[in-house]
Amino acid sequence: MTILPFHRDNTQQETNFILVLISDVTPKSTIQQTLKQQRNELILLRQDLKATNERLRFIVQHYIPFEVGKNLLENKTVPKLGGIEREVTVLFADLRNFTSTCEKLHPQKTVHMLDIYLDIATKAISLHGGVIVNYMGDAIMAVFNAPNEQKNHAERAVKAGLRIKEKAMNTDATSEGVPSLYFGIGINTGIATIGNIGAEWHYQYTAIGDMVNVASRICGQAKENEVLIGEQTLQYIKNDVTAIKLPPTKLKGKSDNMHLYQISTFTK
Amino acid sequence: MTILPFHRDNTQQETNFILVLISDVTPKSTIQQTLKQQRNELILLRQDLKATNERLRFIVQHYIPFEVGKNLLENKTVPKLGGIEREVTVLFADLRNFTSTCEKLHPQKTVHMLDIYLDIATKAISLHGGVIVNYMGDAIMAVFNAPNEQKNHAERAVKAGLRIKEKAMNTDATSEGVPSLYFGIGINTGIATIGNIGAEWHYQYTAIGDMVNVASRICGQAKENEVLIGEQTLQYIKNDVTAIKLPPTKLKGKSDNMHLYQISTFTK
Repeated sequence: MTILPFHRDNTQQETNFILVLISDVTPKSTIQQTLKQQRNELILLRQDLKATNERLRFIVQHYIPFEVGKNLLENKTVPKLGGIEREVTVLFADLRNFTSTCEKLHPQKTVHMLDIYLDIATKAISLHGGVIVNYMGDAIMAVFNAPNEQKNHAERAVKAGLRIKEKAMNTDATSEGVPSLYFGIGINTGIATIGNIGAEWHYQYTAIGDMVNVASRICGQAKENEVLIGEQTLQYIKNDVTAIKLPPTKLKGKSDNMHLYQISTFTK
Repeated sequence: MTILPFHRDNTQQETNFILVLISDVTPKSTIQQTLKQQRNELILLRQDLKATNERLRFIVQHYIPFEVGKNLLENKTVPKLGGIEREVTVLFADLRNFTSTCEKLHPQKTVHMLDIYLDIATKAISLHGGVIVNYMGDAIMAVFNAPNEQKNHAERAVKAGLRIKEKAMNTDATSEGVPSLYFGIGINTGIATIGNIGAEWHYQYTAIGDMVNVASRICGQAKENEVLIGEQTLQYIKNDVTAIKLPPTKLKGKSDNMHLYQISTFTK
C-alpha cells in the first residue's frame, strides 16, 4: 500500500487530499506471462501423457496376454510376481511336420507361414475366451479359466481346439506361396499354479504344473488335424461330445499309462 | 479505458480535472485463481505422467526381452511387426527329467524349482549379453547378435551355455526343499529372421527359421550337464575350445545326419 500527498497544482505548498494506492507488488504483465507459460506447459504435458499412455496401451496389448493386459490397464496397477492355484484347462497346438518343412523354406517364408497359422489359432482361442500365454515357434499355449473365472472352461477349450482344426483344414496356404500344414491339438484339465512366473527380472503370465506338462505331451501325441483330450477334460463335456477312446497311452516322463480321447464334434 | 470528470468537492458544478483509468477487464483475483488452478493441474499431470512412465518402464522391463525393451524405452517408439534376416546364435536350455519330477511335486514346489533354475539360466545368458526371447515351462530360448550386433556371438552363447551348466551343478536345490535338476543345452548358428513375429494382435520378439529348429533339436539331444553345439557354431570358436565330435546324429524332422560337438571348456 502506498500513501501519497496529492497536489492539484504540483506546487507542493498545500496538500488538498491524499491518494491511496493499493497494489499487488507483482506486475500484471508478469502474471500474464506466467499464465501463458503454465498454459504451454500444460499443453505439452497433456500431449506427453497421451503419447505415453498410448505407448503403454500398445505395448501391453501386443506383448501381454489379452485379459491379463486388460486388467493391468483398467486397474492402473503394475503386475506382481507369484501365482495362485486353480483348476484350469490348458490347450497346446503345434504344426505337424514344421521342422521338416522349414528345412526347405527361406526364413521369410517360414515367418509368413507362421503368421497364417498362428493367426488361425489365435483367433479361434480368443473367440472362445482362452488366454494365449505363449507362442513358441510353431506352437501355441492357451489357458482357460484364468485370469478370469470361466465355469465352462473345458467346453471352451475343446470348442477352440475344434475350431483351430477346422479353420486350418479350410485354409489354402499354398495360394499364398507357402506349404499347407495342419495342427495337432492337445487339451488337459487339472490344478495348476497360474500367475506371473519367472526370475525376479522377468515375468511371464503362465500356468505351471504336472497337468500342463501332460497337456503338452498329449499335444505331442496328436496326429495332424486331431484334437486329443485328457480324462479330466472329458468328465466335464462327456454329455456333449462324441469321443473316441484311444488305447492306453504312455506319455514321455509319466509313470502310468493314460487314457486319451479323440474329439471330433460338439453336439451342443 | 474509462474517462471520468473529477470534482474536488463532489458538487458537480465545476470540473477541475479528469481522471483516466486504464484497466484490464479481467479482475486480478480471477487471474490469480486461474494461475492457482493451472498450478494444481500441472502438479497432478506431472504426477500422472511420472506414474505412467514408471508403469511403462516396469511392464517393458518385466515382459519384453531386456535389450529390445531398452531400445523401446530410449527411442520412445512403439514396436513394429516384422523381422530382418541376420546370422545369429541361438541357445536352448531345458531341464532334464522335468516332466517326471513334476509328477510327484505340488505345483507351488514346481514353481519354486523353476524360479531357482530359470534364474540361473537367465543370469548366465544376460552376463554374456544374450537376449532371452522365451521361457517355455522348464525351457529357455536366447538369441545372440540381436537386436544389437555382437561380433563374437558364437563365443558368447557357448560361454553362457557353459556357465548355465556350471551354476546348475553347483546349486543345491534340495536345501530349498525341491529336487536337484540339470540342464541340457543346445546351441546353433545360422541365418534366421529376427524381429517381432506374431499375429496382428500379438507380437513376440524372437528368431524364426530352420537354424532355430535345429538349435531346439540339438538341445533335445543334450544329456544333463551337456553343452552341444552345431557345426557352424564350432567354426567360430574352434581355436578356443576343446570339442568332442559326436557320431553323426539324426535330428527329428531333418533329412541329413548332423555333426554335433560337445563342449566342456573355453581356453581363452
